[in-house]
Amino acid sequence: MGLPKPTAERLSQLARLLEQRGGKNAPLSSAEIEQLTGWPSHTVRKDISLLGIPPEASTTLGYAPALLARAIRERLGFAEKAHPCCVVGLGRLGSAFLDYEGFGDGPFTLVAGFDSNVNRLEILKADFPLYPTFKMKDVIGRLGIEFAVLCVPPAQAQAACDRLVECGIVGVVNFTPVILSVPHGIEVENVSIIDALGTLVARLAARSNQ
Amino acid sequence: MGLPKPTAERLSQLARLLEQRGGKNAPLSSAEIEQLTGWPSHTVRKDISLLGIPPEASTTLGYAPALLARAIRERLGFAEKAHPCCVVGLGRLGSAFLDYEGFGDGPFTLVAGFDSNVNRLEILKADFPLYPTFKMKDVIGRLGIEFAVLCVPPAQAQAACDRLVECGIVGVVNFTPVILSVPHGIEVENVSIIDALGTLVARLAARSNQ
Repeated sequence: MGLPKPTAERLSQLARLLEQRGGKNAPLSSAEIEQLTGWPSHTVRKDISLLGIPPEASTTLGYAPALLARAIRERLGFAEKAHPCCVVGLGRLGSAFLDYEGFGDGPFTLVAGFDSNVNRLEILKADFPLYPTFKMKDVIGRLGIEFAVLCVPPAQAQAACDRLVECGIVGVVNFTPVILSVPHGIEVENVSIIDALGTLVARLAARSNQ
Repeated sequence: MGLPKPTAERLSQLARLLEQRGGKNAPLSSAEIEQLTGWPSHTVRKDISLLGIPPEASTTLGYAPALLARAIRERLGFAEKAHPCCVVGLGRLGSAFLDYEGFGDGPFTLVAGFDSNVNRLEILKADFPLYPTFKMKDVIGRLGIEFAVLCVPPAQAQAACDRLVECGIVGVVNFTPVILSVPHGIEVENVSIIDALGTLVARLAARSNQ
């Protein structure tokens, strides 16, 4: 049975948080998870009960972090191997991901960057190859890239997204402020500093109203 | 009465989407909002019914975008004036916000940037003043800055966050991969490319399981 979307999204974040805590393998209670995530502990317990975890992942002291993270990754369809991703648009924002330290041992890995400006490609340094945009189709196909992180200027966002979909990308993390339209079957996750700030205001307001 | 957190967060994003559509003022149905946002139309209708909108904002053809956006902003406690924000850490990622085009006429405005590297401050150009970190307390107080966008290296994230809280910041948008601990009353919103990618995988998995 499929998990409800909000549950799947919370569990995905929880897995990242558990993985980032690294060696800390002491059992975690739902109250401690509430502290880490800000989600009410009853929501945490509900999500984990919908997930269904092996008995050894849940002790009287709390959840076993590594087992819980693995159960989440398996249920959410993360393959054992990393998901190859690319960055599209290597201006200030896009190039910031060339040395981002957050990927670690997680399930994602950046394998390519694209930009239409060849001079820019010559200047930038990265741990993975950077390509001019016209090589997109070839590179995405050859490396089996599934996801794109879109950082192009707003005026180019929809065209770049269309091109990525043609090349076989199944999901786009959209850092542009543009609302993208994509065919059925393709997922877009908007990452917006404005939405993040709005969320803070909404939470502060929700609290002061309680 | 306070709105449930997920409702408040969805409405906050919806307001941004409506504002970004600019001049388009034709009524929008909940099905069209589903297309824009990816949220089920019944969730959209429920959220808006919890919000409560003036009768003229809801017609037989759909919701009036401008009136709906205004009703959301008012209910969520966005002041008429802009909320002053600052960027902390002006490396590649932080400096990307110095010319970010998404703020527009929305309720947020960047009024200051901080970095501990004075040489870097001299090179960077911005539409607002940039300061060395030791001026943080003075500047945040003087400009009434409410929110900080945290873009420092991971090793400095918790210390920078502590300092921001001391200076009177009430909310932090955390672009670092570090899990921040903050006192009660302060809100943190984590923005993570890993979480965004995880959300895409979770949604694709939820769909293929249906």
